[in-house]
Amino acid sequence: MIIVLKPSATEEQITKFTNMLKESYDVKVNKWDGVQSTVLGLIGDTTKIDIEYIDAQDIVENVKRVQEPYKKANRKFHPDNTVIKINDNVTIGDGSLHIMAGPCSVESEEQIVQIAKDVKASGATLLRGGAFKPRTSPYAFQGLKAEGLDLLKTARRETGLPIVTEIMRASHIDMFENVDIIQVGARNMQNFELLKELGKIDKPILLKRGLSATIEEWLMSAEYIMAGGNDKVMLCERGIRTYETFTRNTLDISAIPIIKKLSHLPVIVDPSHASGKSWLVEPLAMAAVAAGADGLIIEVHNDPPHALSDGAQSLTPKQFDGVAKKVFGLKKAVDKLN
Amino acid sequence: MIIVLKPSATEEQITKFTNMLKESYDVKVNKWDGVQSTVLGLIGDTTKIDIEYIDAQDIVENVKRVQEPYKKANRKFHPDNTVIKINDNVTIGDGSLHIMAGPCSVESEEQIVQIAKDVKASGATLLRGGAFKPRTSPYAFQGLKAEGLDLLKTARRETGLPIVTEIMRASHIDMFENVDIIQVGARNMQNFELLKELGKIDKPILLKRGLSATIEEWLMSAEYIMAGGNDKVMLCERGIRTYETFTRNTLDISAIPIIKKLSHLPVIVDPSHASGKSWLVEPLAMAAVAAGADGLIIEVHNDPPHALSDGAQSLTPKQFDGVAKKVFGLKKAVDKLN
Amino acid sequence: MIIVLKPSATEEQITKFTNMLKESYDVKVNKWDGVQSTVLGLIGDTTKIDIEYIDAQDIVENVKRVQEPYKKANRKFHPDNTVIKINDNVTIGDGSLHIMAGPCSVESEEQIVQIAKDVKASGATLLRGGAFKPRTSPYAFQGLKAEGLDLLKTARRETGLPIVTEIMRASHIDMFENVDIIQVGARNMQNFELLKELGKIDKPILLKRGLSATIEEWLMSAEYIMAGGNDKVMLCERGIRTYETFTRNTLDISAIPIIKKLSHLPVIVDPSHASGKSWLVEPLAMAAVAAGADGLIIEVHNDPPHALSDGAQSLTPKQFDGVAKKVFGLKKAVDKLN
Amino acid sequence: MIIVLKPSATEEQITKFTNMLKESYDVKVNKWDGVQSTVLGLIGDTTKIDIEYIDAQDIVENVKRVQEPYKKANRKFHPDNTVIKINDNVTIGDGSLHIMAGPCSVESEEQIVQIAKDVKASGATLLRGGAFKPRTSPYAFQGLKAEGLDLLKTARRETGLPIVTEIMRASHIDMFENVDIIQVGARNMQNFELLKELGKIDKPILLKRGLSATIEEWLMSAEYIMAGGNDKVMLCERGIRTYETFTRNTLDISAIPIIKKLSHLPVIVDPSHASGKSWLVEPLAMAAVAAGADGLIIEVHNDPPHALSDGAQSLTPKQFDGVAKKVFGLKKAVDKLN
Repeated sequence: MIIVLKPSATEEQITKFTNMLKESYDVKVNKWDGVQSTVLGLIGDTTKIDIEYIDAQDIVENVKRVQEPYKKANRKFHPDNTVIKINDNVTIGDGSLHIMAGPCSVESEEQIVQIAKDVKASGATLLRGGAFKPRTSPYAFQGLKAEGLDLLKTARRETGLPIVTEIMRASHIDMFENVDIIQVGARNMQNFELLKELGKIDKPILLKRGLSATIEEWLMSAEYIMAGGNDKVMLCERGIRTYETFTRNTLDISAIPIIKKLSHLPVIVDPSHASGKSWLVEPLAMAAVAAGADGLIIEVHNDPPHALSDGAQSLTPKQFDGVAKKVFGLKKAVDKLN
Repeated sequence: MIIVLKPSATEEQITKFTNMLKESYDVKVNKWDGVQSTVLGLIGDTTKIDIEYIDAQDIVENVKRVQEPYKKANRKFHPDNTVIKINDNVTIGDGSLHIMAGPCSVESEEQIVQIAKDVKASGATLLRGGAFKPRTSPYAFQGLKAEGLDLLKTARRETGLPIVTEIMRASHIDMFENVDIIQVGARNMQNFELLKELGKIDKPILLKRGLSATIEEWLMSAEYIMAGGNDKVMLCERGIRTYETFTRNTLDISAIPIIKKLSHLPVIVDPSHASGKSWLVEPLAMAAVAAGADGLIIEVHNDPPHALSDGAQSLTPKQFDGVAKKVFGLKKAVDKLN
Repeated sequence: MIIVLKPSATEEQITKFTNMLKESYDVKVNKWDGVQSTVLGLIGDTTKIDIEYIDAQDIVENVKRVQEPYKKANRKFHPDNTVIKINDNVTIGDGSLHIMAGPCSVESEEQIVQIAKDVKASGATLLRGGAFKPRTSPYAFQGLKAEGLDLLKTARRETGLPIVTEIMRASHIDMFENVDIIQVGARNMQNFELLKELGKIDKPILLKRGLSATIEEWLMSAEYIMAGGNDKVMLCERGIRTYETFTRNTLDISAIPIIKKLSHLPVIVDPSHASGKSWLVEPLAMAAVAAGADGLIIEVHNDPPHALSDGAQSLTPKQFDGVAKKVFGLKKAVDKLN
Repeated sequence: MIIVLKPSATEEQITKFTNMLKESYDVKVNKWDGVQSTVLGLIGDTTKIDIEYIDAQDIVENVKRVQEPYKKANRKFHPDNTVIKINDNVTIGDGSLHIMAGPCSVESEEQIVQIAKDVKASGATLLRGGAFKPRTSPYAFQGLKAEGLDLLKTARRETGLPIVTEIMRASHIDMFENVDIIQVGARNMQNFELLKELGKIDKPILLKRGLSATIEEWLMSAEYIMAGGNDKVMLCERGIRTYETFTRNTLDISAIPIIKKLSHLPVIVDPSHASGKSWLVEPLAMAAVAAGADGLIIEVHNDPPHALSDGAQSLTPKQFDGVAKKVFGLKKAVDKLN
């Protein structure tokens, strides 16, 4: 951590501040005098120093971290990729490509079982489906809730596909015990109370990026879960909010290689929510695979125009089959080029 | 609601779609043929129609709402300002100006009581203070929790100031029973499970705007609370996320008159979080009052450099006294000009 | 164009407004009465109607275009791809992939000729290089100017590679006569005076997207050039400005398929400026090709640490060789999958 | 300037790099060894060091400026406010408040003269009006051009109000000789060729902030003009582009006190373009004055629904009279409070 002091700082103030730093944290402090200002360099573990606290000191002009503020999610301290085994067929983060496919909302047994069979036939290895739905409007369909979870399990029994579904509050964790991957939605990425509880269980978590979360904030949210003891975290890029309104969100394709460099956690991409338009799913899925994603999560609905949510961005099983073929074909080609 | 159909839509498809609309919703449908495309106009209460569902139809090019999707928060249906009485001295939304002041975090009895006395002496009519703190890092100070709530009540006993403090999960609601105003933080603005529970109680809610929430999404979150039966909602503008990094956030000053036009709910402005810099609090507070805010929420700390959080944006009691004087002076002048 | 009128509009005002619309523009006007408001639908060529003018009318609540405001750049009116022939070897937009490579700035004959030879050997078919440099600081290197143009021509003579270089003011057009593709930089995307002049010449234009330009604004800038008679326009996505600061800009990968759908113009992607980091160039270039780009423009420098500009994002010739191999390999694979 | 080196940097590389820095720039270099990385501190005038060049060095992890990259626009080197005298009645930056008012576009002699008289009667001290209009669409009205300039001069003769109008290309500078203040529009804020030419003349420049320009980039554009010798620069905040679509732009009210702190140049605020809605002009103008603006620029049109551009955000002369009264009243009150 580098601290630039104000030109007005007196020798006495600097000494007092330096002593406080040494006493409060287990760090050494180097001082360097510039023409306009004095700079302090902190040596040691600065992860636990609150940068805002330092920034608040009267004599501080500004502060800059040299180390990242996350440790458990940091590739520097864990050079090997995190590999998450879901079941005997599905292992995420080992260089293979997995597709999680299914409807935005679980609507009925018939619907979810049929879609599960269809997407499995096309190569999907996990089934996604929403039981609890976060909706902008209190008047919109909020999901089948507990019943939806049961229907997902039925579909899993019928197809063998592990299931991925979203949790919306900590008090539901018991209900999600039998789920294979628990998803945290974009709007809850900084619901720290939920993250803390998910840190206490031993279950893979799919952590979606917040609507306007920086990559560092996103990794800090992963750190919340990991700090509690659960290190099975996957990160899901699902588009960020920008000034461009043509798409629902802007897919931040760069996030894939950046996360791969900064962290050892797997990266999943959601081209459906990133674009909000079904015709954009294929090119964005292709781009994600070319950029190195470990998996995709894609909305598929047997009857998009009658989907109870997110119909505009859902593929039909037939469309999904086409996308899956191309995406797996591309993955094979990319692997050969590496 | 206006629905533009694709040029490729056939007469048969249009008839089928039109019938579905009439049956599913209690609306009349008007059809109008353009050169390139057919347009449908829906007449009736379209609040409950899911716009994404319509957008997902094969034959739909795009959709546009004519009515706003919120009703209870909408000034069109409630022309009079919502006025929220906190106690005999404090009524928000009646044209008066109130300042909620206090530390980011409650740290000790001595600290919170002294600050409460100081800010009261300067004209603040409510005491703010965090007991449960949402922090980006799991390693940062997370607040005194239940003990912090008790200390706030002690400060209230000593000064008579009603207290405002943030809730972070639905299961804590009982603990907040004795709080005067419950704050929902920016990161929880779309924690719909929390909003639903807050809709069931009879307690004023201060709903902060999400980091990248549109004004419509913010009003929809207010609608969540109001739809449950609790109509004592205040909206708090606290800066939005933009590309500009000089300030922590960008205060959206326009939000004040816009909310006043679209809604009947009171608007509070938080210049401390909007800027992240104590020297910006005064000019932003002045701007907010000139633009018509009903209140301000300002961070004050007896010793900002030693604050356990947000020190960089906290004012000392003395600085706050100066700001409060100017702000109340300005309010008087603005009232005379109106 | 659909115009929603205010509930307060009187029958008389509506009639007057409707007559004005019919007289001023060659359109028919349909009227449809809703419960809360009246809606007008305009039939005919509405491209030339100024939407802001309509929006300014007292009785207008809001306006919505059904047709896009651009015509010459619109795929609806020109279904076939625009194919731009640069020379006997290079044709852009015909389904092939072209790489424009070279240094940010032309620095010396030796430098530009050597880089040209290197990138040609790796498969680049065009040489890029800046002679006039738009720099944020007036104190930074501003390019070799006319001399730089001459050196580019020397490199073209030596290698046969056509040259791409940026123009910064209309009065320089004569100087650019012998250039193969004239580039308009992001900061000049809405320098309308420059666009108008470029519309008068018969020379391919590479139009970079503005830092915060919407896709529609970008296509309108292409329309400026095309309206003048020059229809040889290529669009270059180079990243947009968002709140994320890890990368210099955020590559909007969705822009590729969107432009392909809305327009018939070729799309080039610039992974160097989009990321600002050389290690991100490869994954972004791969993503761009997978998403359907017609070309890439990549910064290559023989000695990035000594580049006079943009060194941080430049590849060495050897690194470029690796990227080019993978990118062309990917293109072949993608073509087979289509 | 502080340079953090990569952990992998060898002693030999560091020595070589350090020597290069000392030789290339007139700076001293301090070295400080941390646990993970070495940090270099540069002492001396680092304004002319290209930060991107440093960032491109193989051994550099990242770089941070301690000094701002602008000098002539920097309050640190010019503590006193810049005061710009326009004529005997109008001096900007001396603590007084000036309003520049007038139509978006000059349309006819009758129009501009009448509006000039009206706004003068309401207290405006400068007349604004567009002769050359930057329009997103090539099919929209582009201004009366040279004729518009003449009409502005006629209005000046009739009223004595100095005139402010926008320039769009360097080759027009001669035509603008008789204009009192030359405006550079948001889309040309980084048209560096234009800025350089404006640096060579002795004429006040009103430099609008770019649509997504940071405060630092904006000050660097002012620096371009000042580096050429023209130090009569005023900065105009006119709203920035964000994800919020309710307003045309988001007024960055914080920019006023920030510019006042960082620079000595006057700040003007444009509430008309910032909001795009006439009913928002008053509250935003009030906020700007309360936050310390030196002036306002407001669009006024005798007949907004028939304005050839920007009608939606224009005030009628009567509305303007109301706004001006309140704004000057507020200014008086604010001055008393200071």
